[in-house]
Amino acid sequence: MEKIIRKGIAFDPDTLKSFDEQAKKKGYSNRSEAIRDLIRESLVAEKSQDDESVMIGTLTLVYNHHDHDIQHDLTHMQHHKHGLIISTMHTHINANDCMEVVVFRGKVKDIKETADRMTARKGVKFGRLVLAQ
Amino acid sequence: MEKIIRKGIAFDPDTLKSFDEQAKKKGYSNRSEAIRDLIRESLVAEKSQDDESVMIGTLTLVYNHHDHDIQHDLTHMQHHKHGLIISTMHTHINANDCMEVVVFRGKVKDIKETADRMTARKGVKFGRLVLAQ
Amino acid sequence: MEKIIRKGIAFDPDTLKSFDEQAKKKGYSNRSEAIRDLIRESLVAEKSQDDESVMIGTLTLVYNHHDHDIQHDLTHMQHHKHGLIISTMHTHINANDCMEVVVFRGKVKDIKETADRMTARKGVKFGRLVLAQ
Amino acid sequence: MEKIIRKGIAFDPDTLKSFDEQAKKKGYSNRSEAIRDLIRESLVAEKSQDDESVMIGTLTLVYNHHDHDIQHDLTHMQHHKHGLIISTMHTHINANDCMEVVVFRGKVKDIKETADRMTARKGVKFGRLVLAQ
Repeated sequence: MEKIIRKGIAFDPDTLKSFDEQAKKKGYSNRSEAIRDLIRESLVAEKSQDDESVMIGTLTLVYNHHDHDIQHDLTHMQHHKHGLIISTMHTHINANDCMEVVVFRGKVKDIKETADRMTARKGVKFGRLVLAQ
Repeated sequence: MEKIIRKGIAFDPDTLKSFDEQAKKKGYSNRSEAIRDLIRESLVAEKSQDDESVMIGTLTLVYNHHDHDIQHDLTHMQHHKHGLIISTMHTHINANDCMEVVVFRGKVKDIKETADRMTARKGVKFGRLVLAQ
Repeated sequence: MEKIIRKGIAFDPDTLKSFDEQAKKKGYSNRSEAIRDLIRESLVAEKSQDDESVMIGTLTLVYNHHDHDIQHDLTHMQHHKHGLIISTMHTHINANDCMEVVVFRGKVKDIKETADRMTARKGVKFGRLVLAQ
Repeated sequence: MEKIIRKGIAFDPDTLKSFDEQAKKKGYSNRSEAIRDLIRESLVAEKSQDDESVMIGTLTLVYNHHDHDIQHDLTHMQHHKHGLIISTMHTHINANDCMEVVVFRGKVKDIKETADRMTARKGVKFGRLVLAQ
């Protein structure tokens, strides 16, 4: 169980009011939780700028499954990078397209390079990397 | 099989040279593929600004699994939104944390609202939505 | 003079330590100031999604000044939108290129539309809009 | 005058049609110009990841001008960095707030560090850096 500490933070009333409204709209049950999420996002953004830091992330790919080679190629790339790729999930979108989510853990530079290569693969229509922790 | 058409595009030589280098570095096998990816990304960006358009997307969540309620809550939210959520994948990150990837299909406004609520859930440390097609 | 109110916010110690380090590295003199900046950024991000909200912003343009028409066209567009555009600043970058910063105040949809049109102008090499308040 | 070369690019018809519609909506007079802008944006994005590359950029700041020290401090920081900062533009937003746009030229790491420090300055409510070329 994580210990929680309380700290006094200074706000101007107008900004606090607007933020409380935003947090409520998004579904936060309290202000502290909403602030912690902003802070963690800021830490993740900083960490993901450092090529050497170790992070986890997801790559969302969309591709046309009629191209038989592509699935074979992506699987091959994933096994080739078996230390870097933890798992994948495949979802059928429509008659033509699939979505594949690839979960990575490793150095930021290795994740980015592999994500670039997967996205660049002929037949892959969309790729977006999210570094998460 | 998709028909392919060729069109003449005008470039200045310096920009084209730099772009070819960038595309090669990212792993693209040819210039057309790299340009098509930029175009599709631009179309996805526009579509995701329209609340009423129907898209698919992924939400990457990180949360502490020691909080038993959270998994129950997220599952509950997902079943409650069964028309909107297609599938989920759960990955163990470390002794404390889990990553959950949720695949959505539906109206942009519904996806964004549900993603906000999941991210805002107490115990969820990180949430990032990618709209993909 | 703005009134300041203090509120107790709950943190877990590890996240707080990392955030304090990040804030110090960026040059923040105290934690409250760093948190307020995250909050304001989050409010600006929300506001800029609402087409009808009134905001101020800047558009950073880069263009080749050898094309005489472009400067004339941009000036014309600016005067045509005189209620929307407050001021501009012109900076010489090198023998070929200029940077022009355009300051807007108005409805988000009007700012975005005009910024798109300026960026789309032939000869403009780069355009990026920042909505700020 | 820049030389222009034409290259054949392969498209699938549906994507091309959607892109032509998007380009027209944004005000582009032809497809080539719209594609060149996507390409330059992609090159700028890559360059801005390299700490050692030399770029130009703008920092959009919003601050409360009732704090007399802030203007003095920002001016002082700017003169201290006179090799890095080319020019600034000041715009009055309302009774309380000013917008200041700072134009930089220099190494990416120096621009980012100085932009962070200016944004972190007490009284500055918003700061956003755009690296442009």
